[in-house]
Amino acid sequence: MKITCQKNELANALQIVSKAVANKPQTPILSGIYLKAANGILELQATNYEIGLVARIEAEVTEEGEIALAGRYFQEVVRKLPGDTVKLSFNRDANIVLIESNQAKFTLLSMNAAEFPTIKPFEGNLSFSIKDNILRGLIKKTVFACSSDESRPVFTGCSLEVTENKVTMAATNTHRLAVKAETFDQSIGNIKIIIPARILQELLHNMVSDIPTDVKVTCSYNQISFSFDNLYMMSRLIEGQFPNYRGVIPPKFATHVLVNTAEFSAAVDRVSLISRSGEYNIIKLEFDGQQIHITSNNPEIGNAEEYVPAEIDGPALTIAFNAQYIIDVLKNIDGQQCRISLNQPLSPASIQEAEDEAFIYIVTPVRTAH
Amino acid sequence: MKITCQKNELANALQIVSKAVANKPQTPILSGIYLKAANGILELQATNYEIGLVARIEAEVTEEGEIALAGRYFQEVVRKLPGDTVKLSFNRDANIVLIESNQAKFTLLSMNAAEFPTIKPFEGNLSFSIKDNILRGLIKKTVFACSSDESRPVFTGCSLEVTENKVTMAATNTHRLAVKAETFDQSIGNIKIIIPARILQELLHNMVSDIPTDVKVTCSYNQISFSFDNLYMMSRLIEGQFPNYRGVIPPKFATHVLVNTAEFSAAVDRVSLISRSGEYNIIKLEFDGQQIHITSNNPEIGNAEEYVPAEIDGPALTIAFNAQYIIDVLKNIDGQQCRISLNQPLSPASIQEAEDEAFIYIVTPVRTAH
Repeated sequence: MKITCQKNELANALQIVSKAVANKPQTPILSGIYLKAANGILELQATNYEIGLVARIEAEVTEEGEIALAGRYFQEVVRKLPGDTVKLSFNRDANIVLIESNQAKFTLLSMNAAEFPTIKPFEGNLSFSIKDNILRGLIKKTVFACSSDESRPVFTGCSLEVTENKVTMAATNTHRLAVKAETFDQSIGNIKIIIPARILQELLHNMVSDIPTDVKVTCSYNQISFSFDNLYMMSRLIEGQFPNYRGVIPPKFATHVLVNTAEFSAAVDRVSLISRSGEYNIIKLEFDGQQIHITSNNPEIGNAEEYVPAEIDGPALTIAFNAQYIIDVLKNIDGQQCRISLNQPLSPASIQEAEDEAFIYIVTPVRTAH
Repeated sequence: MKITCQKNELANALQIVSKAVANKPQTPILSGIYLKAANGILELQATNYEIGLVARIEAEVTEEGEIALAGRYFQEVVRKLPGDTVKLSFNRDANIVLIESNQAKFTLLSMNAAEFPTIKPFEGNLSFSIKDNILRGLIKKTVFACSSDESRPVFTGCSLEVTENKVTMAATNTHRLAVKAETFDQSIGNIKIIIPARILQELLHNMVSDIPTDVKVTCSYNQISFSFDNLYMMSRLIEGQFPNYRGVIPPKFATHVLVNTAEFSAAVDRVSLISRSGEYNIIKLEFDGQQIHITSNNPEIGNAEEYVPAEIDGPALTIAFNAQYIIDVLKNIDGQQCRISLNQPLSPASIQEAEDEAFIYIVTPVRTAH
């Protein structure tokens, strides 16, 4: 293999695929990044068997071929190269790759490219296209609600349910639930799968186009892939049955509250400074009159209180929550105003964007002694 | 105590003094920040017995007094307050401090201010004033060369030697030595002490004035203080005898090299990517003709090489160093050009700024097998 490419493009592609390089690889080859040059394209691949990432950049290919290099060193070296272009040449006899950029010359030992489990696009049961801004919304408004407890895998991913022309993404850690839906112009099929949070976070990270771009999503019974721009990202799916969360969403609420999202969010954040070191990070919200009274108390530190103006419609109510569950959702919704809907002090409450009926967040309150 | 002050000023002062709050305090009160209000001034203090930091800000003092608050919480709370001003009021009966800013109200339990080991300015054997930009130069060009090995305390600080009108600061970890001198217009006395690197780093961090400001330095046999702007910083001194480093500086060199600092620094940094994971981080420098040939080699990773143009006067030479010792000094000198002076492959070499005769850095080479 012998190629010349733009240094910045190579550095960016390496940064993207390196997220799939395992820190503790199952086999040594998985600590490597695989490169293949052909037809004016340099393709980079990395995988840890759970997720696989592929990036493509333009290159002047003098000699086609494939190599594999230790991911960590290759990435660091490229990032620090002095020139605008990089030349990579594989010396098969010495089993080394020469990296040249201006006056700098590096030689890295090559891994055995033939050992690399290359990622190949697969045929799925269902394939559809979705604009990246729509997909970003589905992920951003749900993935934060996943659990990180690996002992219960179904809660570490987002449920994706496609029913004709409706796509619904949902996530829960059993104490809170986030659901976001989108409607398409035409039917795209039917599927119900659980996608690991990890690949969805990588997707969020990489879907950064300014103008809406098509993302091609392909699902099979045990894997999913996302293809857009010059990237191909795939992941195993999580096995198991996602809980039937629809029953958790209360059909109606007694008290309806409208509050400025930024003001409410900043106040909850401040008041939780006092509760944060406690085991449950409990804050109390008192909805009464035309304001929310937010309080926290930690016998060893002190206490905090704030008032935030709000439009409250329905019976007054005092209810306690894990502050983090409130902060998380407020960070991930966009509207200037949010709607809080409540029933009883021990019944689930909902938080929504005032403008987005297709998103709902349900949070279970905490029982407090006083 | 009852005061009102600017939130940003209080937050800044807290950030400065909090550096002396011990993570693992010897006694609980040392986890606190002491505040004293009198005569339109709020004074904040923190100490871990090794260093003591005092900051003063203007305040509207309604009621004079002193309090002590848990450092960590007080700092976090103030940083997040919503308003431009903060009101602090001590309720002696309830033993709490009320913190108010706009609609936010915090109550923090008070510690016992009377227990706090307050910092009082001390009389020294020697006291002098120095411009902060001069002091910054003395510290910046030496403190990086200190050792972090606490088992040999004298190497964890900088030697400060005042002899009549000459001030010399020096630091060494026994493998490298940095010495920077300054001459005053008149004699300021005689003293020879070792100042902990820790307080010098805090000083560097806080001496940020745009126009040269006077720093008053006061030394006694076992402590030192620095006073400037609204800050007072003090520290214990390190006991022991600093090595007589003057004998380590070679009286003359055979080979003299002039090289662009930024180019040389970037090349050493890149080449060391390959040696960094090795035990000694060894790079080889070959001075010959009109260039420096920099190489590194790690049998498990690969190798790197670069050429940097240089003016070389004297016999050709190949010499090896711990790359970190070269990178460190190049990061801390300012001149566009630096001078490298050499004798034999196993004799100490020097690196200097081309423009600054009053600074010298001596580094011991490494013996290599090949």
